[in-house]
Amino acid sequence: MDLGPLLQTNDTKILFVIADGLGGLDVDGRGTELEAARTPHLDSLAREGTTGLMVPVAPGITPGSGPGHLGLFGFDPLEHNIGRGVLAALGINFDLQSGDVAARGNFCTVDDHAVVTDRRAGRISSDRGAELVRKLAQISIEGAEIFVEPVKEHRFLLVIRAEQLGADIADTDPQKTGVEPLPARARDEKSERTAQIVGEFIAKAREILASEHPANMVLLRGFAKRPSLPTMQERYGLRSCALAGYPMYRGIARLLGMDVIECGPDLESEVDALHKRWGDHDYFFLHYKPTDSRGEDGAFDAKVQAIEELDRMMPKILKNQPDVVVVTGDHSTPSLLKSHSWHPVPVLLSARTCRRDAVETFGETACIRGGLSQFLAKELMTLALAHANRLRKFGA
Amino acid sequence: MDLGPLLQTNDTKILFVIADGLGGLDVDGRGTELEAARTPHLDSLAREGTTGLMVPVAPGITPGSGPGHLGLFGFDPLEHNIGRGVLAALGINFDLQSGDVAARGNFCTVDDHAVVTDRRAGRISSDRGAELVRKLAQISIEGAEIFVEPVKEHRFLLVIRAEQLGADIADTDPQKTGVEPLPARARDEKSERTAQIVGEFIAKAREILASEHPANMVLLRGFAKRPSLPTMQERYGLRSCALAGYPMYRGIARLLGMDVIECGPDLESEVDALHKRWGDHDYFFLHYKPTDSRGEDGAFDAKVQAIEELDRMMPKILKNQPDVVVVTGDHSTPSLLKSHSWHPVPVLLSARTCRRDAVETFGETACIRGGLSQFLAKELMTLALAHANRLRKFGA
Repeated sequence: MDLGPLLQTNDTKILFVIADGLGGLDVDGRGTELEAARTPHLDSLAREGTTGLMVPVAPGITPGSGPGHLGLFGFDPLEHNIGRGVLAALGINFDLQSGDVAARGNFCTVDDHAVVTDRRAGRISSDRGAELVRKLAQISIEGAEIFVEPVKEHRFLLVIRAEQLGADIADTDPQKTGVEPLPARARDEKSERTAQIVGEFIAKAREILASEHPANMVLLRGFAKRPSLPTMQERYGLRSCALAGYPMYRGIARLLGMDVIECGPDLESEVDALHKRWGDHDYFFLHYKPTDSRGEDGAFDAKVQAIEELDRMMPKILKNQPDVVVVTGDHSTPSLLKSHSWHPVPVLLSARTCRRDAVETFGETACIRGGLSQFLAKELMTLALAHANRLRKFGA
Repeated sequence: MDLGPLLQTNDTKILFVIADGLGGLDVDGRGTELEAARTPHLDSLAREGTTGLMVPVAPGITPGSGPGHLGLFGFDPLEHNIGRGVLAALGINFDLQSGDVAARGNFCTVDDHAVVTDRRAGRISSDRGAELVRKLAQISIEGAEIFVEPVKEHRFLLVIRAEQLGADIADTDPQKTGVEPLPARARDEKSERTAQIVGEFIAKAREILASEHPANMVLLRGFAKRPSLPTMQERYGLRSCALAGYPMYRGIARLLGMDVIECGPDLESEVDALHKRWGDHDYFFLHYKPTDSRGEDGAFDAKVQAIEELDRMMPKILKNQPDVVVVTGDHSTPSLLKSHSWHPVPVLLSARTCRRDAVETFGETACIRGGLSQFLAKELMTLALAHANRLRKFGA
């Protein structure tokens, strides 16, 4: 619903502590990573506040980082989409402008008949990838600016800058080997000029890479423009900021008009920055990456440690006594699965106006009995605003 | 969903006992008001029936009385709106006709430059308000009937009756002091004639009130017409009635085509009326106001007593053994907050077909574990109809 007519301002502070990929799965009867971790501070917040389980997008749907975070900030990830190309740009801190068309690129291997034999060109090293990107970056196309930027290994970013480009271009990545790359086909009239430019880029890239092996061709996917989303200020009347060491999360925050505070990639420097900027903002998004990284590694014990490190930092994080504190994740990353998953994410909300529940510890099993019940991530912001007394009554 | 094709009639009776503002918050570790109250009869219903928590409108949204009750009767409060002017009319039992445009009025104070200095004219007494209303009621405008009725203190009701009036008029109340009242601006073509009439009314009111102090001007807001809602008979095939001592709830019931039974404002007289009319209806809406009033007063103990009084009355209320009994509220009114709130409302449903849950007492914390889980108020009526065996199978 449109909260606009209900918004009221005051001097409350809302803090979201987002432990990326927080949710987990039991391994060997030890419980989940969060349950196995010693977390006295989070447990105390759970005991005094109210808890629940949050479904990032919809039951059974595993979100990427884009949808996962959009949900946290109150946007329905099924309605608002950050294209893969845009996420790739955000992820390397590329300054994407509003008309730019971005795509995620892969170096790949094709045989003499132009048939794809390896979609990732043997996962060439990042150094080798960067070297090849420098060659592609020399491609020039009449009437457009072309940016090619290395991402990691065989992955790169392509950005096309020109007037009035559509971005509805089918992927050229066939998603399997044994077939030729697909042509860059426009799916609407506005994107025909874009398709032409992309076609020209691919032809020139093929020439340049002809004698390289195994990276002798490129595949492109996820063509997209920067979505136009309302800012946190417009949508919620919040002066908001992000404390996030990793470029992708800084990028997502920037899409929503948050101030992105300069800080290092580690939690300590994020927390220092948080306190330095405490007076300037109403809403603080503190992003903690290691929980997701260790989950992706499949490292149960390391994820437990990452959670314990966050817990130890909680007193310092809460030093200025925010009015509303939320601790949760953007999705689950069980180390058992070594990947993002669809499992609901434990969430705790602490505020003066919480209705307490019987939950005494912060963990997936305990949160089933939490007072917030199971709910969709896109509803979290409204709850936080309510507890911050920033929403007027609806209807007389 | 449209229940029409599923409806079947039988001689079951459904009773909704609505304790207004029932939900609460813990104070000093005593639990919520409902938890602190001694409620053996409600506990027994909770034990034998099934329980849960109901979200009136959406998570985090605090409903007014209009949206709160629309939800209980199965209407989505986000789709159907009862305007503030209409609620004001319902609240004083004004017989609003279908084309009437109603607005909520405030006497206010303006200075020599027509700038609002007090939006409530120092909250003049109800007697003084009524006296000034009598003066305004003499205003006559060509081609329209004008009704001005006292509400309470500085508040009054304005109703304009004429052919084909639109009601999309911007509030003249600027919602702050230090500025002039806003003009009555039409937001669509159909409302231009209305805006003209309102403008004329305001000009004449200003003249009449010129020498009055502090109530020397009026502010109007919430222009609205009676919404056209399907009746309970049309929507559910239910012969329905309301036992409600307070005008506003009687008014809401009337909007939905319920028979509004004459009764006093106290529970005892509502219950007497209930039994007198038991044979005539299928559905009974029994409204109990003190839980909300004591919550608004911030009087924890008095709200506890109000709940205990309701509990003591339960055996008498249930004397005729309705087939389906629901006990809940239209929203929470925690005495801690002295106002409506967004917190989910405990609900119990008792019927022969209930699937029992582990809940042994009626209270917010216990209901978290209830078999109804957490659900939206608009889904309650369908559940009640199902337990009354009034819904056929959906699909083959």
